[in-house]
Amino acid sequence: MSGNQGASIFDLDSPQLIIDLDILDKNLATIKNGLNGKNLRVHFKSLKCGGLVKYLMKKGQSSFLCAKLNEAEVLADIGVKDILIANQIVGDLKIARVDSLKTKAKVKVCIDCEEHLVALSNFSQKFNTSFDVLAEVDIGMNRCGTFPGEHTLDLVKKIVDAKNIRFAGLQGYDGHLQLMLGSSEKTAKAFQGLKSLVDTRRLIEKEGIEVPLVTTAGTGTWEFAVQTDGIDEIQPGSFLLMDCIYHQARPEFQPSLTVLSTVISRRPGLYVLDAGSKAISKDFGMPIIKGKPDEKIFKLAEEHTRVECNEQLPEIGDKREVVTAHCCATMNLHRNVVASRKGIVVDIWPIEASGRYD
Amino acid sequence: MSGNQGASIFDLDSPQLIIDLDILDKNLATIKNGLNGKNLRVHFKSLKCGGLVKYLMKKGQSSFLCAKLNEAEVLADIGVKDILIANQIVGDLKIARVDSLKTKAKVKVCIDCEEHLVALSNFSQKFNTSFDVLAEVDIGMNRCGTFPGEHTLDLVKKIVDAKNIRFAGLQGYDGHLQLMLGSSEKTAKAFQGLKSLVDTRRLIEKEGIEVPLVTTAGTGTWEFAVQTDGIDEIQPGSFLLMDCIYHQARPEFQPSLTVLSTVISRRPGLYVLDAGSKAISKDFGMPIIKGKPDEKIFKLAEEHTRVECNEQLPEIGDKREVVTAHCCATMNLHRNVVASRKGIVVDIWPIEASGRYD
Repeated sequence: MSGNQGASIFDLDSPQLIIDLDILDKNLATIKNGLNGKNLRVHFKSLKCGGLVKYLMKKGQSSFLCAKLNEAEVLADIGVKDILIANQIVGDLKIARVDSLKTKAKVKVCIDCEEHLVALSNFSQKFNTSFDVLAEVDIGMNRCGTFPGEHTLDLVKKIVDAKNIRFAGLQGYDGHLQLMLGSSEKTAKAFQGLKSLVDTRRLIEKEGIEVPLVTTAGTGTWEFAVQTDGIDEIQPGSFLLMDCIYHQARPEFQPSLTVLSTVISRRPGLYVLDAGSKAISKDFGMPIIKGKPDEKIFKLAEEHTRVECNEQLPEIGDKREVVTAHCCATMNLHRNVVASRKGIVVDIWPIEASGRYD
Repeated sequence: MSGNQGASIFDLDSPQLIIDLDILDKNLATIKNGLNGKNLRVHFKSLKCGGLVKYLMKKGQSSFLCAKLNEAEVLADIGVKDILIANQIVGDLKIARVDSLKTKAKVKVCIDCEEHLVALSNFSQKFNTSFDVLAEVDIGMNRCGTFPGEHTLDLVKKIVDAKNIRFAGLQGYDGHLQLMLGSSEKTAKAFQGLKSLVDTRRLIEKEGIEVPLVTTAGTGTWEFAVQTDGIDEIQPGSFLLMDCIYHQARPEFQPSLTVLSTVISRRPGLYVLDAGSKAISKDFGMPIIKGKPDEKIFKLAEEHTRVECNEQLPEIGDKREVVTAHCCATMNLHRNVVASRKGIVVDIWPIEASGRYD
């Protein structure tokens, strides 16, 4: 595939996942211009691709977070030194893997109950090691996390008292608000969640416990977090690759990710592409055809996408770029991605963490 | 992982995709008992796993079909000799790959227009080779395929006349009916589609053209196809692994595929598993917890599954088996699967064709 460098993306075989680096660069610049002094920690769950992280590191990005341990291992392998695993690590097999990562990077993990803490502390005492631990706070998503206020304070006190454990701060993610379109309701809910997180920080600090880091927010809520005192960093991921659904909620970012596809069949009013729901995630909605507003995708089967087309039908073999409806899920469906600029292949990167959940 | 042979599946790290071979064996026996003299061609798009195909070959299964060329390559590599690619192959890069497969296996491809035929015939004349070609007939799905009757006959005549091309029969798939629950409407629509396919066969035969094969139907419609004269074979795939959605439409097959997951967080009324929509496809609906009817999955995020549980909550670290809502899509999300029997690991198989669409 390295032989394809310099080729037009439209001359590649399909289906092929493609990133437009010019658009990605603009998305990165947009968020950097709005950070308001907060740290930017990029979420690797949306990328899963070491080559893309190396590209971001060359542009000065050093903090990353991830959802799974295997993603942290990919990050550490390529030289990322500051990694937050924004998830609970359960079981000694996985705790040992976290421990072995620490020779390569500074790694933090999240917990939300005493069982997690006891397991980490027991392991670290047994093997003469230690862990940096954030308390995950539920700021409205109703998933993992302690409740804001006293419930979190109770856990933090136990973290501080636990042997071979360092309290590293608070993690709070407002995942339930990410795709909500901009509205006064969204704004109110976002600030309400952020306030509960900052109030919890202040409650802990009143007890004389230092809170080294409060980290929160994603692509859909970053603007609220950067305006909030007591928040140290934001943790978006989708803003780089984007998709047609997220773009409706966050029009300041443009989709840089597409799936190159080929027309394989056609009939009056309809053509069929050679990539379907196995290659283009439909879990957040319908993808669109880039630059062809009159050609409307109406059905994704596993390996076929059907497109309504009442204008001039494309020829068999013509190419289309599909803007996905969910960039994170689509990165997980592929084993490599072509990096391009102005329609020309710049590089091809393996997506090391796709298809892995351990 | 081979070191895990003989281990309990519940002692494996999670998330881990698991096949129960005893259930799979029963599903295979059920369909074999009902074939009524038709050939069984198993659809590899649902499996994507060479180890599973080898297992089926040892049980006498020799005919397979697939949706994509890379799947055909996996089949040929493990020694399958009878392969149907039930899709259009577009572009000389892919046509050359089909041609190179023929040293290993007998391979058939589908076409639905003259452009496909010309491309195959030009290639085969240029490189002194030949292709076995089925005409794909649209029996109601409104996707690829010629229309039944004269439209198909026109294409078949061109296939017969084309240089270095052999007419291999008719492909018709009633994908639009697969998940429909049993009803008089489904029965009527299925037989209507089958009749259009058989009528087309007879029309072609009246012209003195032999139709070597008429192949059709999936797990959701197999019972109608095996009752129909003029149909030679059925091509189901999901019946082996199954899922909780397909099981509603085809209760004669049981789910043999699960995703082993671990409880990582809990609170009153709710627990959270360590596998989400990236590991358990939700494109056909909500998965279920195996053997726990009182524990109801209500939300899959990318790496978390939330389960309503108003009875005794499980402990942190407890395991659950999740019956997926779409087996084909879930096989595509993983890179390996554990084969088990009575809860004991028998083998681990790579899923070679997962994450590939070329």
